[in-house]
Amino acid sequence: MTEIPLAPLERILRRAGAQRVSEDAVVTLSKILQDAAEEMSEDIIENAKKSGRDIIQPEDVKAAIKK
Amino acid sequence: MTEIPLAPLERILRRAGAQRVSEDAVVTLSKILQDAAEEMSEDIIENAKKSGRDIIQPEDVKAAIKK
Repeated sequence: MTEIPLAPLERILRRAGAQRVSEDAVVTLSKILQDAAEEMSEDIIENAKKSGRDIIQPEDVKAAIKK
Repeated sequence: MTEIPLAPLERILRRAGAQRVSEDAVVTLSKILQDAAEEMSEDIIENAKKSGRDIIQPEDVKAAIKK
């Protein structure tokens, strides 16, 4: 159901010091990051358009964080 | 180098309407999401501790978004 895989997110949590992590918690984190990526995508595409490009470049992504 | 894999992020961008996407742009998005996950992890772990649990639950993740 979630697009961003759970294993890397669980690794990030464990590296930050989490000892036990429920799978539902990792699924929740995956959904939140996916929602953020989807919201950013609209801005990212808009940024490329504003620059007269049809290819998305890193600066389009960086400019979308500010929102 | 990035922990969150690129393929799902590229899919999200394409679904939002992106036609061409440079790989560097997807790497940039992956890093941004990873940074966000790392920053949230600190709060997530703190939230579980405050609730007297040693297992991370979805509510710890949800409470960390607000920051």
